[in-house]
Amino acid sequence: MSTIISDESHITFDELVALLRRIFINADVAEGNADILAVNCAMCERDGSFSHGIFRVPGYLASLKTGWVDGRAVPAVEDAGAAFVRVDAQNGFAQPALAAARPILIDKVRNAGVAVLAIRDSHHFSALWPDVEPFAREGLIGMAFVSGLASVIPFGGSKVVFGTNPIAFATPVAGASPLVFDQATSAISNGDVRIAAREGNNVPLGSGVDRRGQPTVDPTAILDGGALLPFGGHKGTSIALMVEILASALTGGQFSLEVDFSGHPGAETPRTGQLLIVIDPERGGNSAATYRVRQLIDKLRDAGQTRLPGDRRYTRRKASDDYGIPISLPDLRYLRSLATSQHTP
Amino acid sequence: MSTIISDESHITFDELVALLRRIFINADVAEGNADILAVNCAMCERDGSFSHGIFRVPGYLASLKTGWVDGRAVPAVEDAGAAFVRVDAQNGFAQPALAAARPILIDKVRNAGVAVLAIRDSHHFSALWPDVEPFAREGLIGMAFVSGLASVIPFGGSKVVFGTNPIAFATPVAGASPLVFDQATSAISNGDVRIAAREGNNVPLGSGVDRRGQPTVDPTAILDGGALLPFGGHKGTSIALMVEILASALTGGQFSLEVDFSGHPGAETPRTGQLLIVIDPERGGNSAATYRVRQLIDKLRDAGQTRLPGDRRYTRRKASDDYGIPISLPDLRYLRSLATSQHTP
Repeated sequence: MSTIISDESHITFDELVALLRRIFINADVAEGNADILAVNCAMCERDGSFSHGIFRVPGYLASLKTGWVDGRAVPAVEDAGAAFVRVDAQNGFAQPALAAARPILIDKVRNAGVAVLAIRDSHHFSALWPDVEPFAREGLIGMAFVSGLASVIPFGGSKVVFGTNPIAFATPVAGASPLVFDQATSAISNGDVRIAAREGNNVPLGSGVDRRGQPTVDPTAILDGGALLPFGGHKGTSIALMVEILASALTGGQFSLEVDFSGHPGAETPRTGQLLIVIDPERGGNSAATYRVRQLIDKLRDAGQTRLPGDRRYTRRKASDDYGIPISLPDLRYLRSLATSQHTP
Repeated sequence: MSTIISDESHITFDELVALLRRIFINADVAEGNADILAVNCAMCERDGSFSHGIFRVPGYLASLKTGWVDGRAVPAVEDAGAAFVRVDAQNGFAQPALAAARPILIDKVRNAGVAVLAIRDSHHFSALWPDVEPFAREGLIGMAFVSGLASVIPFGGSKVVFGTNPIAFATPVAGASPLVFDQATSAISNGDVRIAAREGNNVPLGSGVDRRGQPTVDPTAILDGGALLPFGGHKGTSIALMVEILASALTGGQFSLEVDFSGHPGAETPRTGQLLIVIDPERGGNSAATYRVRQLIDKLRDAGQTRLPGDRRYTRRKASDDYGIPISLPDLRYLRSLATSQHTP
């Protein structure tokens, strides 16, 4: 990782955050929101979640430019009960809405044992693990559900209904980093299809269909009028349906199928909703809960599971912390040009 | 459905409950517990959840007879916060533990917006949908997670770690019956493998492996030293892992891998734990939540999903309500003999 090849450079996490922050501010994002989006995007790049790192910058900017998403939105947090918080993201990004509600949410979890955060009218354009990992670092279990852009045909159906509708889960682990997974309920994420298309790679069979509904391994055929398939057949479809109900019906956000940016050409961000459930594991009556998770992980490794969810991200994070975040020179030039360009509100 | 064929009879739901109740009492189950188990088992048979209906009676009786599970257990309910209830099932069945905690749980959900029920030291030997559907009938969203007997090899692993670890989800739907799904995180449920073995049918490829770890469609090879596989590859494995953490690590129950009834030959019930999360959808700030679920279901049917989760159960339930529950004459004779046999505590 430390070898600098000709077209690649390394920058520190803080340098990347500063660059991204300036880019978002130049795109008329409020400073507080820009801070949050910049850290989130840099975390994805640092951890190797490339489909949600700097790869997303053009999509962020295009969506902001069309006025589809409001970078200056001020989330409205509502206390809805001893264990329920609502946030109206006011057509802004989901991450600032979560950040605004986080203190009251954690308070409620500590007091009540569990709490729900329902975010509506929000745009989630990043990975989901950054939303839940911080809860695990505070000793809490976090679950998150987000609906997206209709791109997935339910098992047995013939038309798209669901977004890639990811689920993320994070739990503290005694004496180790949190166990975190973040997975689309589609067989493959939208971002990974787009990266495969850009790099000329195939996607695995079962990932999607072309515009005639035929199975294909060609990512461009999926993107060009085709559709994704759910993971795990009818069982994965049920999970995707649950996500749509929790993240949209329950929160008051739009369904994946209702997102309509036809009036905003170039916009890419889904205007839907998000639900989080945060649990205090100590309330389970098993004060050794995190030790038990550690034991379970040991059992999994003993059963030959060489790679657990999140392992690859942590390895990449360590390398980025030690040697800097690798970034191609063209990408770096692109980001720097965006960061230094005149702010045209 | 109304045609009575030579070796089949029909009995009413209440008749089946009465029969099962007597059978459980004869097996030294306390009356209150017997009522709950009888209704639960009869519901499964009525709805066509055959792998959890009267098919399970010998397993119940064998487990009770060895003393592995305590039919007279009195669940200990603990109020653990504004939104958290714990129950120690005291080595009894999970359903009486849920029933004991249900009033306080619903109270908390109505007050706080969400609540968690953590059950430990419990035996769950039935389907999971009967645990969540009643919440939806009271206007609440229910999610349930149960760990079981180690029988599933995690994706990429070589030894069993997980039980079939089902997830169930139920939501109210405006103007319709609740939407309910209940699915193992294994590719196929244990009960369905056993039914296939009994009936001499194959199981789908991908369901499991034989004792040498080779893929097989022979259910007896899976049961005879083989193992099940998770649904959906590594993503299904993550879901199974989440279930194990929620239902066992969090509750203080045993892991699927820790269940050891070697001292109780013939015992079949898993002594683990169960977690429920119950949410009041009205707290989402979207008073139309259940109408929105209805809209989503309409979209799914419009997209060609002819069968939604739970549809088959409701069809079967209707037929059972109209014409009685079909039961073979040998099964009926068997149940009646158990019901009338001397109670030998």
